[in-house]
Amino acid sequence: MEKWFFEVQEPGVKLGLEYEEKLLDIQTKYQKLEVYKTKRLGNLMVLDGCIMTTEKDEFFYHEMLSHPSIYTHKDPKKVLIIGGGDGGTLREVLKHSFIQEAHLCEIDGEVIEAAKKFFPTLSESFKDPRAKIFVEDGFAFLDRSKNYYDIILVDATDPIGEAAKLYESDFFLKIYNSLKDDGIFTIQAENFFYKLNFMADLYKTVKKLFPNVYFYFSPVITYPSGTWAFLMGSKKYNPIKDVNFSKGDISTKYYNRNIHYGSFSLPQMLKSMIK
Amino acid sequence: MEKWFFEVQEPGVKLGLEYEEKLLDIQTKYQKLEVYKTKRLGNLMVLDGCIMTTEKDEFFYHEMLSHPSIYTHKDPKKVLIIGGGDGGTLREVLKHSFIQEAHLCEIDGEVIEAAKKFFPTLSESFKDPRAKIFVEDGFAFLDRSKNYYDIILVDATDPIGEAAKLYESDFFLKIYNSLKDDGIFTIQAENFFYKLNFMADLYKTVKKLFPNVYFYFSPVITYPSGTWAFLMGSKKYNPIKDVNFSKGDISTKYYNRNIHYGSFSLPQMLKSMIK
Repeated sequence: MEKWFFEVQEPGVKLGLEYEEKLLDIQTKYQKLEVYKTKRLGNLMVLDGCIMTTEKDEFFYHEMLSHPSIYTHKDPKKVLIIGGGDGGTLREVLKHSFIQEAHLCEIDGEVIEAAKKFFPTLSESFKDPRAKIFVEDGFAFLDRSKNYYDIILVDATDPIGEAAKLYESDFFLKIYNSLKDDGIFTIQAENFFYKLNFMADLYKTVKKLFPNVYFYFSPVITYPSGTWAFLMGSKKYNPIKDVNFSKGDISTKYYNRNIHYGSFSLPQMLKSMIK
Repeated sequence: MEKWFFEVQEPGVKLGLEYEEKLLDIQTKYQKLEVYKTKRLGNLMVLDGCIMTTEKDEFFYHEMLSHPSIYTHKDPKKVLIIGGGDGGTLREVLKHSFIQEAHLCEIDGEVIEAAKKFFPTLSESFKDPRAKIFVEDGFAFLDRSKNYYDIILVDATDPIGEAAKLYESDFFLKIYNSLKDDGIFTIQAENFFYKLNFMADLYKTVKKLFPNVYFYFSPVITYPSGTWAFLMGSKKYNPIKDVNFSKGDISTKYYNRNIHYGSFSLPQMLKSMIK
């Protein structure tokens, strides 16, 4: 008897992953948290019915959330990750030896515990002495950290429920204030095929605060449409003109110099929306 | 009662599309041909259980199979499409007023008939006076057409069953001989996430004949992994150095100049395989 986990990606569209066993099924203070051992893509983490990550395809999302801003910033030393309790983004950030402090602020401690148990290749990053983990709400954390970070990476769930406030002006203002004068932030931004209007609205919201706003894209196999968008808001640097790879190479599966440049190409249907 | 069509994209991975009704279900001389009216993505064509195209996401595949070689070639006038019975690739090719002849050689006439009936926005291209449709095997057709085409686009099904021979040396030699001295061909090339070894082998096979071989990528929402690869084999031109957009703009939903350049960026995992 085959066992399948299905995610409704869109009304009328489902992605199914066959699994061998369910490893975890709990209701945390904030969300329903499930972990499955899938046949094809390794362990799978699900929050409130939405695929968060699988061991086999997580590298796309985590590499592409992290490295474009790190290579764009002139001299990044202090990074904050909001969300990201699985540890994958933290692992990517810490691949760079010049990063001195990587703080992670995750509201749900049970996500961190599940990552430690079921996603060791992601959560290994928690052990790095440069990493510091805060289990608390990102809003309060940002209020205590003014003008401190070079880069802030928002590794949050989709803009529904608890996470909806992470895609609004109030939050971006706090991000802005917690960044130094040449700071950059990046946030996952859904997909341009099913969520074009959301992306256009997000662009306008961030553009009110940050002078430089960019979208870029990456495959993420298990996310709706298979191509994921990221929004970068930057106070000073431009990811095409200012990117600097002399910082040193790192080991990746997807990201490299050409992917960096190419990922900022805007699909025609999006380009016409944000002009 | 919900009705869903599921495609097994990989062992252990399924994409599901909800449908309102099945519009066609026949066994042709070559394959099982089904058409569904889906809830979210318009009409869906399925061959031997594999998703070929949907009305809503077909533009990715058809734009990206066609335009990169057309803008790369210095002066393309004669184009051959092998397969492509739905008409989508032909429609894209004919958007360019400088294309004088567009031949389409599709082995299965019933695919063409189904396209005419259920995919009018694709098959409208059949009416263009510059289009000529041949219902026959591509191998025999190529043997009759030496040194004739500027561009050949192979719009075939996956390399299994009847279509497997379209990914072998014999076929690429025929393609080579049917192209003029500065000809270019493009073929769909699966995906780098699940089919990395296939892609590396295909690259080596084509590289034995064509001096310039490139991979490029596009989202295709309903194809396995969500990101699709194309292989371009070129006798002379380079798609980055020789691309020329002064040919004139066309109306597209995905393709544009920046997408052209960006699409040729190789993911690190593929780059290390074909070096």
